[in-house]
Amino acid sequence: MKTQICATLISFAVVVIICPMLLPLLKRLKFGQAERALGPQSHFKKAGTPTMGGISFIAGITAACLLFNTSRKSELVFALAITLAFGLIGFLDDFIKITQKNSLSGEQNLSSASLGMRGRHKIIMQFCVAAALAVYVAYHPSLGTAVLVPFISKYWDMGIFFIPFLIFAAVAVVNAANLTDGLDGLAAGVALIIMIFFFVTAISGGFTQISIFSAAVIGGCLGFLCYNFNPAKVFMGDTGSMTLGGAVIVCSAFTKTELFILIAGAIYVIEALSDIIQVGYFKLTHGKRFFKMAPIHHHFELSGWEETRIVIVFWAFTAVCVMISVLAANISIY
Amino acid sequence: MKTQICATLISFAVVVIICPMLLPLLKRLKFGQAERALGPQSHFKKAGTPTMGGISFIAGITAACLLFNTSRKSELVFALAITLAFGLIGFLDDFIKITQKNSLSGEQNLSSASLGMRGRHKIIMQFCVAAALAVYVAYHPSLGTAVLVPFISKYWDMGIFFIPFLIFAAVAVVNAANLTDGLDGLAAGVALIIMIFFFVTAISGGFTQISIFSAAVIGGCLGFLCYNFNPAKVFMGDTGSMTLGGAVIVCSAFTKTELFILIAGAIYVIEALSDIIQVGYFKLTHGKRFFKMAPIHHHFELSGWEETRIVIVFWAFTAVCVMISVLAANISIY
Repeated sequence: MKTQICATLISFAVVVIICPMLLPLLKRLKFGQAERALGPQSHFKKAGTPTMGGISFIAGITAACLLFNTSRKSELVFALAITLAFGLIGFLDDFIKITQKNSLSGEQNLSSASLGMRGRHKIIMQFCVAAALAVYVAYHPSLGTAVLVPFISKYWDMGIFFIPFLIFAAVAVVNAANLTDGLDGLAAGVALIIMIFFFVTAISGGFTQISIFSAAVIGGCLGFLCYNFNPAKVFMGDTGSMTLGGAVIVCSAFTKTELFILIAGAIYVIEALSDIIQVGYFKLTHGKRFFKMAPIHHHFELSGWEETRIVIVFWAFTAVCVMISVLAANISIY
Repeated sequence: MKTQICATLISFAVVVIICPMLLPLLKRLKFGQAERALGPQSHFKKAGTPTMGGISFIAGITAACLLFNTSRKSELVFALAITLAFGLIGFLDDFIKITQKNSLSGEQNLSSASLGMRGRHKIIMQFCVAAALAVYVAYHPSLGTAVLVPFISKYWDMGIFFIPFLIFAAVAVVNAANLTDGLDGLAAGVALIIMIFFFVTAISGGFTQISIFSAAVIGGCLGFLCYNFNPAKVFMGDTGSMTLGGAVIVCSAFTKTELFILIAGAIYVIEALSDIIQVGYFKLTHGKRFFKMAPIHHHFELSGWEETRIVIVFWAFTAVCVMISVLAANISIY
């Protein structure tokens, strides 16, 4: 338990120390967030808040992992590498978005919804990283292609179907985590709480390396929340949200609890579904909207909920989901 | 682990269901909060928010504890009884405050700083409850007068001095928890995070009853936060804050980690000290102020921090303190 707590504290400390140095830098480079012209009006005041703050917890997580890593070829190093690869895709997306925005001005800025990498390119890169993860896990001597089934405490061997399943799951989770990043403190807090599930699973299942990794992510999120909570001084950007999505899928793949993301990460499922329903309904009805705005946190916002209230309720909901997951995993600590 | 998680979920559910029913009732009875005339100006808008919301989590905690209680004379029942007794003192204080306020009006209202029970009466009642707890623990066959010393993992038998020590600690903690209740979500969140320490300690030390009790308190706080977070729809009142203070001291006394409150509950120590320093400095210097306002969370508020930022930073600080406490308790789960 000592190593894990130290990993959390180190990751936390790095983020809390780095953020005040990173913020002026990001501001100077004009890495401010371009608010969606189609987003809630109340968000326009957020324009100019520096984004790409995810870099801070990438640094914290990396520092903590490398400090407590014992071997070059450990699972910890691979877990970190995959997470960083997802983070890098997010970084490229952010970077292209900002470079485009800085070269535009005034009226043109309003079309910022279409900024960033082409969706196709982004997905292809995510597929490649996801494939690397899936192959590694499938052929790992102590992991393999079986997944733990919630509530019945049995493993289900998916055989050859495991690889496409995990690739799909990884791409879905990373993009869902990206969607969830829409309110101050939402994505970081939700990821922190979900990570507690993986921490408990890893501890009780003897996956020491993953317990250290998840502990580092928890510390990073906690540190980042000090700056990201309403009113946010910095946003994590796609850099941050894709890193966190990557961390979630990596932890689940390494503890064989892929299916538990549906329970512990119910918020991700809901956010992604709300977006899909909105778009599908819009197309089917030729212009009607199912939610006032998707993803669903904006629906609550337009329904008159205060931003911080939505965030806290989503956190509490995730905490309940995590507890149900622990029940479903039938974890016995003593 | 199952029982504990179910206790949390039940307590959470009771609070989330009861609150919407309790709120209109409290409002109708005019149990709105009388804001201190001396408090920060930004708080005046909070006048009229119903208080005594602590009743909701008292109900939740009681329901969960009684549901999972196995014997009439169990430690769980005694822990609950002491906590409820502290809550009752807070309730009386709230009740007298509100009755006085309702009978006053206009100008007179400004002197609301002096509302409530006489300080002397409150302290005497707290002493009595604390004494009952101290005697019970001191003469309990498996508890006794020894306390665990942080970091060195040894017990220090305080002998006869244990009783006055625990009485002092209990009164201090309950009043510190009361002081901490000054910003939306602060007291409930801090208590929730501190309770995680006692939950872990109780689980690893085999104190099943206290692990259930702390799990119930965690669920209650989580549910209450959904309504109490900024902008608060309800305040917990002294009813709530003294209940939470009572829960903290009870958990520490039953797991022999009384001294750990100084670490895990560092926020309580800081809040209480800031108040003492402010008053002492004011008297010594005949009118100068050490902080802009005491307790310390108001100091940060007057320094220009947003309320939600102070709350999140205090939560993160408490989370770090809890992790250090777990290190200091040398807990090994596997």
